[in-house]
Amino acid sequence: MKVGYLGPKATFTNMAVNQQFPGVESVPFLTIPNCLDAMMADKVDVALVPVENTLEGSVNITLDYLIHEVFLPIHGEVTVPIKQHIMVHPFREDKWREIEVVYSHSHAIAQCHKFLHTELNGIACEYMTSTAAAAQFVKENPHINGAAIGNLLTAEEYGLKIVKHNIHDSMNNHTRFLILSKNPVHYSAATSHLVGHKTSLMVTLPADRSGALHQVLSAFAWRKLNLVKIESRPTKTGLGNYFFLIDLDRKMDDVLIPGAIAELEAIGCEVKILGSYPYYMTE
Amino acid sequence: MKVGYLGPKATFTNMAVNQQFPGVESVPFLTIPNCLDAMMADKVDVALVPVENTLEGSVNITLDYLIHEVFLPIHGEVTVPIKQHIMVHPFREDKWREIEVVYSHSHAIAQCHKFLHTELNGIACEYMTSTAAAAQFVKENPHINGAAIGNLLTAEEYGLKIVKHNIHDSMNNHTRFLILSKNPVHYSAATSHLVGHKTSLMVTLPADRSGALHQVLSAFAWRKLNLVKIESRPTKTGLGNYFFLIDLDRKMDDVLIPGAIAELEAIGCEVKILGSYPYYMTE
Repeated sequence: MKVGYLGPKATFTNMAVNQQFPGVESVPFLTIPNCLDAMMADKVDVALVPVENTLEGSVNITLDYLIHEVFLPIHGEVTVPIKQHIMVHPFREDKWREIEVVYSHSHAIAQCHKFLHTELNGIACEYMTSTAAAAQFVKENPHINGAAIGNLLTAEEYGLKIVKHNIHDSMNNHTRFLILSKNPVHYSAATSHLVGHKTSLMVTLPADRSGALHQVLSAFAWRKLNLVKIESRPTKTGLGNYFFLIDLDRKMDDVLIPGAIAELEAIGCEVKILGSYPYYMTE
Repeated sequence: MKVGYLGPKATFTNMAVNQQFPGVESVPFLTIPNCLDAMMADKVDVALVPVENTLEGSVNITLDYLIHEVFLPIHGEVTVPIKQHIMVHPFREDKWREIEVVYSHSHAIAQCHKFLHTELNGIACEYMTSTAAAAQFVKENPHINGAAIGNLLTAEEYGLKIVKHNIHDSMNNHTRFLILSKNPVHYSAATSHLVGHKTSLMVTLPADRSGALHQVLSAFAWRKLNLVKIESRPTKTGLGNYFFLIDLDRKMDDVLIPGAIAELEAIGCEVKILGSYPYYMTE
């Protein structure tokens, strides 16, 4: 089995791959569309791409590509907590508080805003295209008195020394990744923790009218089908037309979810089942 | 008046500033938190930051910062269509199809996936920290046979020649920006188009139970208050606890919206009014 993911190496996506598919061959791709295309062309068996609250890529590109460009069922989800650390060249370990510039991806810098302002007194920051690129730069330029911000894997991969762990502002920041494949995916070796199952639906309303969403949710509510996520997204036909992405907190069954879908279709909605799959959490 | 925005110069955020506040002094900030902090410290009067479907910054950072870190009312919204163009150093204009590498922000490259694959045969791409940084690099390195992807303002600002317009895959891709301020904001000079008014609410459910969202939407539905956007977001207390961001397609009034809010509070929800404001669209 071969797993494609949004690169570069040593990002949070790479961490998700390692925990979900330990020991399996993995291939980083430059962009989310590149990764999904490779999957469609059978160059990889599984694609793992960020879908929410990501650092290294755009959520909307994943959702839009998934819905409009290709149709790949979701076979799993994995959530990774976003933990940022500050790291330096090993020989600067003892004097790290004297660093003059911090390198990282813009989102990682924004996520460590409080630490940079209070503990490093609003130190100069320079953007790099990824946390991995920042770490590589710091490693290869020991004469520059700088540090990188990144995750554990970044420090390991580029031989940097973490001098302060968990410098991110929000302790409950997570990135969700989707696992897409043409075929069923087995997680027997996963080192992450199985949390439960979800079923994801895309529901397009018949017309943009007040109360239509309320009617849609009635079909789920009286069956006590619990929504763990709902998001309205504009359709490609222009602003003002919306569809809804709905995650239910259970596996597809024979009666309840099909019954709700049949009712939604009867009132003129279009319903697409994006997948029914297990979801995992990593440390 | 001084407007702070997510930099660098010549990004889509800068385009939104120019159309919404023509002729006004504007200040680019390195990160969204930096921009919002400057606003809180009265260093700028207005902050304009991306909130949805953005290229240059993270949506979630804006929402989370807005909700958890500061409380600034929303005073306006402006939507900018994302139009990407390919541009080269002027002296390469006639031979642009011979370029060997394309520079841009990772999201811009992902958004032009089809063009790069079909018309430029999957040309090599190199990431830069922003579309502006890419344009500057191409301008300053005329010996490199490369092109940049960016918007009209990028080409203008860095003196590059656009050789093909509108190379982005999706013709209905937009970025929404929020305008935040401690004081009312006047848009008398705006060159954008006024579309309507919105009221944004943040609703936290009393407990994570099935049907709670349905009950919340009932309060809007029977009053025929139309939702133009709904999104569930995890609270900071951990995964599994959600609040909802709801946009209604009308101004705050004296009866209907306050009545719905009073009912939601009576059933145990927490409701925060994020703002009631006009929304604009640029060309």
